[in-house]
Amino acid sequence: MAKLRFQISISIDGFVAGPNPSEEHPLGEGGEQLHEWVVKLAEWRKPHGYEGGETNASSAVMEDALSNVGATVMGRNMFGGGPGPWGEEPWEGWWGDEPPFHTPVFVLTHHEREPLEKEGGTTFTFVTDGIESALEQAKEAAGGKDVALGGGADVAQQFLAAGLIDELDLNVVPVLLGGGTRLFENLTGANVALEQVRVIAGPDATHVKYSVSA
Amino acid sequence: MAKLRFQISISIDGFVAGPNPSEEHPLGEGGEQLHEWVVKLAEWRKPHGYEGGETNASSAVMEDALSNVGATVMGRNMFGGGPGPWGEEPWEGWWGDEPPFHTPVFVLTHHEREPLEKEGGTTFTFVTDGIESALEQAKEAAGGKDVALGGGADVAQQFLAAGLIDELDLNVVPVLLGGGTRLFENLTGANVALEQVRVIAGPDATHVKYSVSA
Repeated sequence: MAKLRFQISISIDGFVAGPNPSEEHPLGEGGEQLHEWVVKLAEWRKPHGYEGGETNASSAVMEDALSNVGATVMGRNMFGGGPGPWGEEPWEGWWGDEPPFHTPVFVLTHHEREPLEKEGGTTFTFVTDGIESALEQAKEAAGGKDVALGGGADVAQQFLAAGLIDELDLNVVPVLLGGGTRLFENLTGANVALEQVRVIAGPDATHVKYSVSA
Repeated sequence: MAKLRFQISISIDGFVAGPNPSEEHPLGEGGEQLHEWVVKLAEWRKPHGYEGGETNASSAVMEDALSNVGATVMGRNMFGGGPGPWGEEPWEGWWGDEPPFHTPVFVLTHHEREPLEKEGGTTFTFVTDGIESALEQAKEAAGGKDVALGGGADVAQQFLAAGLIDELDLNVVPVLLGGGTRLFENLTGANVALEQVRVIAGPDATHVKYSVSA
C-alpha cells in the first residue's frame, strides 16, 4: 500500500533549523550545516541542476528518498514564505520555474487558491480542508506510488501526532545548533510505535529509517 | 590523554527520561523503554549480578562503555535522590552495597560530606567546588584511564556547555516519549564541534559515537 514517507535532516540536539532565521540565514544560524551532507552528493546535485559532486555511503539514502514517490505534501511555508493570504499578485513560491518535485504537490493552507502548474511535472494544488484531505488527494494522485511529506516541522508534527506517517528517515548530523526549530515537539499523546528498519553510516551523517505505526 | 566519556540512551525525540517521574516510574512514563536494549544483554547482566541475557550487535557498545574507565563523575541525583542536605542519617545512595562502578566516583553536590566507601572498589567522593574540580580529581584518580560521566542530564549539559566532554556516545532508541527530560537543552552558546566516529546498528537501538572538541 502507498506509504507516507518523511525524510529530514536533524541536528543531534533535535533541531531542523537553527535559531534566528533571516534573509541571510533562511535556515537559521548554523542551519545550513544540516544539509552539507546532501548538497555535496552527485545524486542530489544532478536533479537540482548542479554539476559534479561525490558519491558516498549517503548516496543510497538520496536515491531511496527520490524513488517511488508519486506525490508530495507540504506546508504553506515550505511552498514559499511571503505575505498571506495570497493577495492580488499571488506568491509563486521559492521553487522556481522547474521545481525539483516533478510530481503533484499538495500545499496545506488556510487560504483557497487555484492550482499552480510549473514545468517538469510539478503542479501545486492548495488544500484548505486539513491534513487527512491533503493526504487522501496526494495518495490518489500518486497512482500507487508513495507520498513524500516535504515539511516543515509544524506540518510533520501534525501528521506524526495523527499517526499518518508510515516511514520516518532521519539524517542525524553531528552538529549542536543549541536552538531553533525542534522536529519533535507538541507530540504529547502521540501514540505511535517505531521500529528501526535501516541504518546507514554516511561520512557526514547517520541515516536511520523507522517504520511508524499508529 | 585521558578522556571524559559520556554514554546515554536517548529517545528519538531527545528525551533521556519520560514525563512525570514517580516512585512507580523513576525514569518517567515510558522511560524504562530507553534501557531495554541494554538490560537484555549478557554483557550488562553479568556485572549487575543477573544471569542469562543475549549477545548481539549492541554488546560491543556495552563492552566499550565499560573498558578503560578509571573513574566516574556524576551529579547528586544520580548518586541518590532523597532529601538534602545530607542530614543526620546521610542517604547512602541507590546503588546498594556493591555499586556497579568499581572505581572512584566523584559526586557533584553543594553540600560537603565525608567520602563513602562501598564494596568492590567504589568510593563516593563528594565535590562541592564545581565541575572542573570534579573532573580534575577524577582524572587524577583514574591513573591514566578515562573518566566516565554518569549523568544526569543537567550535569551532562554543564560539562557539554563547558567543552569538557571528549566523547559522546548516544544510544538512540526508537521510541517517542513525547515529554520528559531533554538531554540537549540550555546549550545556547556551547561552542563545540562534533565528529561522528562510530556507528553501530543494534537490533533495538542505533549507537552513534561522536568525538567532541571545544
